[in-house]
Order: sequence, then C-alpha cells, then structure tokens
Amino acid sequence: MGHGCAALPRANMSLDQTCVNTIRCLAADVVQKAESGHPGAPMGCAPMAHVLWSRVMKYNPSDPKWFARDRFVLSNGHACALQYIMLHLTGYAVSMDELKRFRQLGSITPGHPENFLTPGVEVSTGPLGQGLSNAVGLALAEKHLAARFNKPGFPLIDNYTYVICGDGCLQEGVTSEASSLAGHLRLGKLIVLYDDNNITIDGETEISFTEDVIMRYQAYGWHTQVLTDGNSDVDSILRAIEAAKAVADKPSLIKVKTVIGFGSKKQGTEKTHGAPLGAEDVAHVKKSFGFNPAESFVVPEPVSQLYRSAVTRGQALEQEWQALFAKYTAAFPDDAKLLTRLMSNALPPNWEDVLPKYTAADPAKATRQLSEICLNKLAEVLPELMGGSADLTGSNLTYLKCSQDFQHATPLGRNVRFGVREHGMAAICNGMHAYGGVLPYCATFLNFVGYAAGAVRLSSLSHHQVIYVMTHDSIGLGEDGPTHQPIETIPYLRSMPNHLLIRPADGNETSGGYILAVRSRNRPSTLCFSRHAVPNLAGSSIEGTLKGAYVIHDVAVPAAVLISTGSEVSIAIEAAKLLGDVRVVSAPCLEIFDEQPLVYQRSLFPPGLPIISVEMASTFGWASRAHVSIGIDRFGASAPAKALFAKFGFTADQIAVKTKAVIAHYKGAAPDLYAKPAL
Amino acid sequence: MGHGCAALPRANMSLDQTCVNTIRCLAADVVQKAESGHPGAPMGCAPMAHVLWSRVMKYNPSDPKWFARDRFVLSNGHACALQYIMLHLTGYAVSMDELKRFRQLGSITPGHPENFLTPGVEVSTGPLGQGLSNAVGLALAEKHLAARFNKPGFPLIDNYTYVICGDGCLQEGVTSEASSLAGHLRLGKLIVLYDDNNITIDGETEISFTEDVIMRYQAYGWHTQVLTDGNSDVDSILRAIEAAKAVADKPSLIKVKTVIGFGSKKQGTEKTHGAPLGAEDVAHVKKSFGFNPAESFVVPEPVSQLYRSAVTRGQALEQEWQALFAKYTAAFPDDAKLLTRLMSNALPPNWEDVLPKYTAADPAKATRQLSEICLNKLAEVLPELMGGSADLTGSNLTYLKCSQDFQHATPLGRNVRFGVREHGMAAICNGMHAYGGVLPYCATFLNFVGYAAGAVRLSSLSHHQVIYVMTHDSIGLGEDGPTHQPIETIPYLRSMPNHLLIRPADGNETSGGYILAVRSRNRPSTLCFSRHAVPNLAGSSIEGTLKGAYVIHDVAVPAAVLISTGSEVSIAIEAAKLLGDVRVVSAPCLEIFDEQPLVYQRSLFPPGLPIISVEMASTFGWASRAHVSIGIDRFGASAPAKALFAKFGFTADQIAVKTKAVIAHYKGAAPDLYAKPAL
Ligand SMILES: [Ca+2]
Ligand SMILES: [Ca+2]
Repeated sequence: MGHGCAALPRANMSLDQTCVNTIRCLAADVVQKAESGHPGAPMGCAPMAHVLWSRVMKYNPSDPKWFARDRFVLSNGHACALQYIMLHLTGYAVSMDELKRFRQLGSITPGHPENFLTPGVEVSTGPLGQGLSNAVGLALAEKHLAARFNKPGFPLIDNYTYVICGDGCLQEGVTSEASSLAGHLRLGKLIVLYDDNNITIDGETEISFTEDVIMRYQAYGWHTQVLTDGNSDVDSILRAIEAAKAVADKPSLIKVKTVIGFGSKKQGTEKTHGAPLGAEDVAHVKKSFGFNPAESFVVPEPVSQLYRSAVTRGQALEQEWQALFAKYTAAFPDDAKLLTRLMSNALPPNWEDVLPKYTAADPAKATRQLSEICLNKLAEVLPELMGGSADLTGSNLTYLKCSQDFQHATPLGRNVRFGVREHGMAAICNGMHAYGGVLPYCATFLNFVGYAAGAVRLSSLSHHQVIYVMTHDSIGLGEDGPTHQPIETIPYLRSMPNHLLIRPADGNETSGGYILAVRSRNRPSTLCFSRHAVPNLAGSSIEGTLKGAYVIHDVAVPAAVLISTGSEVSIAIEAAKLLGDVRVVSAPCLEIFDEQPLVYQRSLFPPGLPIISVEMASTFGWASRAHVSIGIDRFGASAPAKALFAKFGFTADQIAVKTKAVIAHYKGAAPDLYAKPAL
Repeated sequence: MGHGCAALPRANMSLDQTCVNTIRCLAADVVQKAESGHPGAPMGCAPMAHVLWSRVMKYNPSDPKWFARDRFVLSNGHACALQYIMLHLTGYAVSMDELKRFRQLGSITPGHPENFLTPGVEVSTGPLGQGLSNAVGLALAEKHLAARFNKPGFPLIDNYTYVICGDGCLQEGVTSEASSLAGHLRLGKLIVLYDDNNITIDGETEISFTEDVIMRYQAYGWHTQVLTDGNSDVDSILRAIEAAKAVADKPSLIKVKTVIGFGSKKQGTEKTHGAPLGAEDVAHVKKSFGFNPAESFVVPEPVSQLYRSAVTRGQALEQEWQALFAKYTAAFPDDAKLLTRLMSNALPPNWEDVLPKYTAADPAKATRQLSEICLNKLAEVLPELMGGSADLTGSNLTYLKCSQDFQHATPLGRNVRFGVREHGMAAICNGMHAYGGVLPYCATFLNFVGYAAGAVRLSSLSHHQVIYVMTHDSIGLGEDGPTHQPIETIPYLRSMPNHLLIRPADGNETSGGYILAVRSRNRPSTLCFSRHAVPNLAGSSIEGTLKGAYVIHDVAVPAAVLISTGSEVSIAIEAAKLLGDVRVVSAPCLEIFDEQPLVYQRSLFPPGLPIISVEMASTFGWASRAHVSIGIDRFGASAPAKALFAKFGFTADQIAVKTKAVIAHYKGAAPDLYAKPAL
C-alpha cells in the first residue's frame, strides 16, 4: 500500500485512462476510509478533472495564490474528494495523509471545500449554486482588471475560470441569476463543465428537473456544447474546452454526460451519491479498473509523474509571468505599483482622510445620502472599490460618479448593474473578492438581505470582505410597508459569526462606519442606512464609531443610559434632553464594541443604572446589553414614516415616559450586566 | 369630482378603451393623492387588468373567498394601485375612500398588497418574484384538489391562476426555480402575463437584463406567446389568454409589450416607476385620455356599470356552483364532507391521537426519524397534508408512504418533488396554503433556510401555515462541515415575528411539536430535527411540549437550572445527573412558552438560581432567559459528530464543570430575569 509503489495497471490502457481510473479508485478509498462522503460525483467527474489539471489549467502548486493562475471552482462541493485528490496529485500542500484524514477533525480536507483551510481551494462550496455564482464574480473581476492593467504586449491579467457543477447547482435560483448576468456581461473566459449524470439525491432528475438546460443557457446568451461520453472520451472534453476558449465573447456551458459512481456496482444510481460504496464495492471498482483490490490509496508511478510535472511547469509559468511583470514595472511604474498593492491586499496610506467630518451645524440628511458621499470619496482613493445595486441604484445611492457602468463594451467601469438579483449579486461579490484586486460592495434594501442570505453567510464563513450597503433599514422607509420593513434582519446579521453589522446615526458615524468596513480585510460588513433624514449630532465622532459604541450625550449625574443605533440615536438624545438626567450611548457596531477592552465597555454604563435599548427592530438579542428594550417585535405597517414612528413608540416623548418608568423601577440598583462568570 | 358623476369622455372611444383609461387616470390620482407610490406599472398594465376582470376571471366580489374562484396574483406588487382600483370597480369591499387613503396608516390599501388586510388579495406581494412563485403553488393545489374531488359531471375544483408580473420578477432566482418546476409539473391552468416595458428601476432593461425570456420559458416547458401592442389592443390580450387556456398541459407565459406610465409625459421611462407623476402630469394624462383634468377619482357611469356587473355575475356563478355542490353532496357524501371540512380550514376530531407516545425504554432514534413517523401517522388522518423536500427526501425523511409522487400523470400524489429549489419550494408552499384545502410542509437542512428566507418571512407575515421540516439542525450533522451547520439560523427564526421555532428533544416532544405546528392555523412553524440519534427521555411529555417549556429532570433542592432544546436536552440531563443538584428545563418552543401565564413561566425557575442555556447554536438572544449561555458563537467544523461535541463543549462533563462554576459565581443570588418593569 502507499503512494507510487504499484505498477501501471493494464499495459494496454492509455495513460490518460489510467490517470482517470486512479482518481476514481482514490475517491472510492478516501470516502471509504472516512466512512462518510460522496464518492459518486468524483468518480463521474474524474475525466473532466484529469483534462483540466493535466492539459488545460495554468497554475503553480508551489504558489497557490499566484495572481495569474486560472481559477477552478468545484460548484458541486460535495465532490470535494475529487478536488483534494487533484491538489494532492499535482503537488499542492495536500498530503496523502490529509486524504486519509478526509472529513476528520483538524484536517485540511473537510467535508466540503473551505477556501480558508486548503491551499488551492478558491471558494467555499457545498451549498449548491454558490460555486458557479462565485465563478461569475471571478470572471468579472478578471475582465475588469485585465481592462485596467493590461497593455499591448503585457497580458498580465489573462486567466480563465473553470467550473465543474452538477444538476443541483443548475436548479438553484442563485445560479440562474448569476448565469443570466454572466451572459449579459459576455464573460467569455468563464467555462462551465456540467456533469450531467441524470441523478439527484432523490433519484433520477426525471422526477423534478426536466427543463432543457442547454436551451436555457442559450437564452442567457451562453455558448453551449453537449458531450455524449464523459466517462472515457477524454479528448472530446479537451476539444470542447478549446472550442469554448475560442468563443471569446460568451461564457460557455459544456454539458458532459457521465455515469455517477462510474466503476461501482451501483454506478448510475443515487446510491453512489452520498455514502461510502462499502469495502466490497470498492474492491469491485479497483478490479474493474485493473487495480489491485487489496491495495488502497495507490498512485501508479506514471500517473504520479504526469501530475507532478505540474510543479515544475507551474514554477516556470510563474517565473515567466514575473519576468513579464518586471518589464511592465519598468515601462508602467504607476500601474505596476498599484497592481502590486492590489495583489498584496494592502490599502493605500491615509485613505481614511478623504472621508468627511460633520458638525451639528451641517444640514440633516438621510444616512443613505451620507453613504453616497463616502462611497464616492472612497472611490477616488480606492480604485479597487467596485460594485453596485440590485436594480435600486437610485434608492441605495451607490453609483460611483467617478466611473462608468461595467459592461461588456466598458470593462473599465466600476459600477456593476446587478439587476434584480440579490442572491446572485452577493455570491458574485464573494467571487470578486476571492479573485483579489477588487474590493466589492453591493446594495439593496436591508430587508432583502433575506433573499441573499445563502451567500451573505458564505461571505462571513469564507472571510470575504464584501461591503453590503443596505438602505431603507427600518420602518422609517414608510409607505412601502411591512413586506419591505426589516424587523428580524438586524438580529439575524448580529448573530452571524464573523460579520459586522454597522448602523450609523449621522454623518460622522457614516464616515466611521466605512472606515470599519474597509479596514476589516477578513470579514464582510453590512452597513445599514436610513431612507429618511437625520440630524448631525453634536456628540458624534469618527473616533467613537471606531470603538463600536461611545457616549454621545451625557449629563453630570445620569439616572439611566439609553443605548441606541442608527436613525434612532437622535430620537434617544431628544428623549434624554426632555428628561435631563440620562446618558445616551450610540452603538453603531456592537461586534466592534465587544472587541474593546472590558474596562472601556464598562465605562459607558455606570453601575446600578438601568440600560434601555432603543432600536426600530426586533428586540431579540438586546437583553445581554440592556435591562429593557424598546423595539418592534411584530411586522411593520404601511404609512408615512412619521405616522409609523408615533404608532410604534419612537417619539422622544414616548421614550422619555418609558425611561422614567424604568428609572423608577430599578431605583439605581439595576443588576450589573457585565458581571458574568468566566467559563 | 367623485365617483360616477362624469359623462363618458370622447364619444367615439370604445367602452373598453374608456375602461382602460379610467384605470390609468385613477392610478395617477391614487398615487398623486398619497404623494407616494408607483403609477407607471398600473398605467401600463391597465389593459391586461381590464381584460382579466371584465372578460376572463370567475370571481364573486360579495364572497372574495369563494373556493371556486379564479386566483389572481399581482406579482409586481408595487403596482398595487391597479389591484385596489380593480377591486373597487368590481364591487369588492374596497371603497373609493380607501383608494384615497392609499398607503396611509390604518387603510386597507397598503403600499404593497397584504393578503390579510384587503379582500380579494390572495397573497402578499412586493418582494419581487414571490407572487409568481406563489401562483405556482396556487395552481399546484388546484391540480391536486381537482384530481382528489372532481367526478364526471362535477368539475367542482376548476379554476385558473392568473399572474401579472414585470421583468423584476423574472430576474429573481425564486421565479426561475418555481417556473422550472411549474413546467415540469405541466401546470396548464397557470397563465402569466409578463408586462414587458423595457424599464427597470435603474433604467432600461438593456443595462442588466438582455436574456431571451421567451426562449428561457420554452426551455422550462412553458407555452409562450408574444403580444406587440399591450397598450391598446385589448382583443389581442383576450385572444392570447384563450389560446393559453387551450393548451391544457403547459403553463403559459404571455409577453405583453407595454409602455410604462402610458399617457404620462414621462411615459416609457423609469421616472414613472416609483414616484407620483406630479399634478401637472396627472392633468396631462387626463387630457390625453379625454378626461377633465380638473376632476379626480372619476369613474364614468358606463365604466362603473360594466365593472359592477361583476357583482351579480359573481353571485350567480357562486349560486350555480353551490347548486352543483349540493348535488355532489348527495351523490358523494364522504367526499363532500371532507371538502367541506377542508374549505372551512377545520381539523378533524382527535387527529392528535395518532401521534405516538414514548417511554425511556424505547430505542434511541434521530429526531428526523421520529419526525418521519409523525408525518406518516398524520398523513393518514390529515389528507390535506401535502409536501416534500428540496431533493433531500432520504435525508429529511419526509416521504408520505401512504401516497405517491405528485406528478403531471399522478396529481393525486401528495409527495411533491421540489428539486434543489429551496426558495421556490417555500414560496410555492405559501401559494398552496393561500389556495386552501391543503396543509403544506417542506423540507431541507436547517442551514438552508437561508436560501429560502425571502419566502419564509412571507409565510410569517402573511399568516401562511407552512410546516418547515428542517433536519440536520446542528453541528451534530458532523462531517458535512461548517457550510452545512446552522449557527445563526435558530436565532434568526426566533427573532422573526409570527413564527414558531420548534426543536424537539425526543419522541414525545416530536409528537408534541407536530401538534403545535398543525394546531397553529395562522402561522408557520419550523421544526428542527437532529441527524443523530437521541435517547427517549424519562421526563419528556407531549403535555409539557404543548406549553413550550417544562421541567424534564428535577431534584429536591436545585442549585441551578439548565434550559436546553433539541438533541442537547439529553446531554444537559446527563450533566445534571453528574452534579446531582440541578433542574433541567426542556424548551422545545420558546414562542409558545412566552404565551403561557407568567406564573407558569416563573414556576420553572426558582428565585435566585442561575439559569444556564445549553444549545448548539449561536447564544444570541438567550440572555433574556438565561444568566449564562453555553452555545457556539463561531462557525462549526467538519468531523464526526462525537468529535465535534467534545470540541465545542457539548459533553456532560464539560457542561457539568461550567454549571458548577456558575453556581459558585452566583451563590444562590442570581438576578431575577422575570422582574422587568411593565411599560
Ligand atoms: Ca467562452
Ligand atoms: Ca396553458
């Protein structure tokens, strides 16, 4: 047993076929050893993977992040045994031992691909449809950066994005959205191999998926091809990929007919999808491919040699590219400097300085308008800032006036017109961030985060710095009514790990909020902005915002503390002024506040004083920070904003009355919310 | 000014055209008076609405819920001025005064249609794509109930579902999912009128939406037609609808070319989309249609007469149907009795009795297996129970063995194969519930609620009783890893108004959980089930479950209370047994617990004792109920479940150690979490 110790099976079998069968046997072994996983798709897709890694893709296993590499996305992430096997075989830092620790605690071969864990994995997949949608973002970023940096004779940015996906991905709405946009944008360097095995988890696709996928993709404006034998005709796969590359102005879908679990006794059935084949069937697989059924994890020497040639090939490719980049640096020093900065994911010095500061004398504005100012200021110093709205540009106020639309004919443009495609938009932004060199933002109404939640979660999990610009963030949006008014969205995003929920109260906090979002290189942020105007507050500051929460209004001897966010802070301050003995804490970002030293956190809340939260959203989650919560634990209503504020208790008068009652209730002896046992 | 007081304008104008123009003028007036709203789409879609309400649809304004009515869905809900105008004109209880109170507090004419507020509104729309997807559910339910109840000569269930939608709806992924399934299921009585006006909020569709919609719907298996003049050619719309009805085995898409804001100076531009036209332009509209620009809210008498004839026509139609139903009742008394029960949304007597009870001697099972038993028991006594999984039937264990697949050829089947279409699935279930006569359930992994969140929210807002059967509800799913392990999903659903989050600990609680879900006729429930086996607990009971939370393990003199849910309850009890002085409260449904009398709520938590929550999810939101929370405030990991339980602190030993520390910290003087001021 072991790597490289067995002879090439069946002398008359071509090396290509032996490679493919080696992958299949390894896939069966990997899943069998783990006693968990999905052998069927890796065995079915082995020929495509073989062609991509041995004949097609440009990559350097010694430098998985080499910027000019082709990107590969396994959209059917449950087939990840295949990806790990290819990374191992081609010399990435994925050892045979890691293959043997598939799906075990602490391995780098988890049950679905995680970009932050495994070298060579571009994006986290498994939740169906995300990978293909990410790939649209990868190809979009490539197209933009190529337009930005390439010069005649200097094709610095010039890679393809390859995807393998199954029918599950093609059934998901997120894929429909992203694919329609990819067709519109004519992303010609996106090539998708569709593993058409006629099988889903529930059985044959016939029971639920009978649409004509090829016609659908033609309707999207894609170039399409159909291969009838994806099990053994390796050459046809290669020829189809070459044909796809030749069509420069359309993304390509290649439907490849395969048999799931090819080689298994259960091949062609859903039984090979989501469980190990069993020892007996694994032996059968090996026998049918001419391998020794008594041996596991075997890579015949010629197979190993063929794949390992990727290491030297990759190093040579990167050296060649580095030489080109050196010449480019001499010829175009400014562009080279910028590209170097972007590739290293660094920010330019003093970028924050462009963001405006305000005083209470500045006119009241909706925070979405203040956001527009910040976005446009940032766009001037951060050429990597690129994004747009899901067809609400004029409401979200997210257009970068210093640039133009990103379209097929104008790839330099940094304003992406996502269309009414929230989920696709977020998934595409994840892909744009994964590419590198761009800082993606996207926008819709806060409530419609719900449409994009599948991808927003993956921004957080995968450490994609996507800036979500979410306007119309409360009942303050008024007449559009409860279908548009977020209630549970804010607690939802606060409960999501590795995600900043930022809700600025005014101009300074909007500037501070953008600083937090741009600084957070390793996580996404959701910036929540009001539709309605709010005053600039005397006590607000960027510095305070950067601590997540701070005292914005104070008195000599407070009797209570109001903690508030966003557009409600100004109402809380009005209420405090009515009462005369109340401190107000503005809390634009509770996650950042939780990262401050405990002594600072406690300093905002004098012992014994009751804390009352004031936020026009579900009160869910506030009890850890406030004794009493003023919020909205029902759906909203359709009416002008002012009428809604009164109806839901968000006037200074109503808050003052409640605050008085709370002060009377606790009599200066409210329990200490910060006195928790250390566990 | 006023209703019915003006003469018919322009003698040579056909009555049809006058009707259409009356609608357009009213739409301009309604939005202008509200100083808010969307005039463009109502004006553009007026001809379609006129044809539907005057020539096509079967409905009874005096009985908006008449079961045999055609269903109408305005998928572009922002065009709701149109719907309210049609309801008013045809004699529904939507007065002219209500049109004048469009988008005002307390009116029944909110900014987007709300099914629970306005007679004649079938589903809540506005969030794009939901309406068309709901319509698939409406048509699906019709097809099933027709197969179930109709007999030769008794076409009791025989209605069409009509939709008006815009390009926004067609860009949304949820629509793609639902439309693909509608084509697969050959829902021939679903007819969609696509208002193709080339305009989105951001401008011309050219900037982001250039796919071939007709080809795409052909790929889905739909019947398609294109009308080039939707502004004035009323007959062509009628003929197209008749042609669509003639194709009985395919859903139909009719693309109708219109000009947005037809009649406005700004017609054909996005400027008519989302804001009042302005007084001057409203006057222009009226002049161009031969109306008196000085008058508002005018309905010419012939127009009024034509539409109001719907009242007597509708009454006659319903009487005819009632006569048919009387004959049916005589001929098929059992079927009639069942249909009567279903139409009245009543449950049969003693249905709960079929659900199993367990003792601690019963073998350990995954709660998803216990769920399967309940679903199948319920299916026998509740013929209305109908649903399925998003291609995870074998994992969710949601197949009703007493029935078969619901397919075109087998419409009696109650097992819907939704495919990998979570968002579409949830939206379709909303539509099924809106139809009446079926109790829809649907399933996926709990984490993928995120994919369906847009529609899950609308279940809650619209009071649709959809039962979400969500398995693999924690890190206990093991190897599939963090992309599949819910962390924030549970707090998300708990923070959503009008939604039950039910997480049973064992067999009795699973039975109790289903009772809660089936009983809750006015709200959706999410039932969370484990992938892994859990023991049947000595102290568990259906009765306790029906209170939302109850003491499941007790001691004479407790020193602390562990409150836990789902698969963690058994671990909490183990920990309590190790310590010997700890009470355990099982809390399968906190929303139901909050509805119990305060004296019962307090009785579970003796004064001064610390309360510790134990749940394998984000701790967000627990602080209102527990002094300390043991949970998971990060993303999970890929490994066998047992290894993850140890890693994340969910072993009896680790919980016992922490509980001891908490007891020591509070020394019997933990603050009273139930002593909050009444505000
Ligand atoms: Ca191509
Ligand atoms: Ca039809």
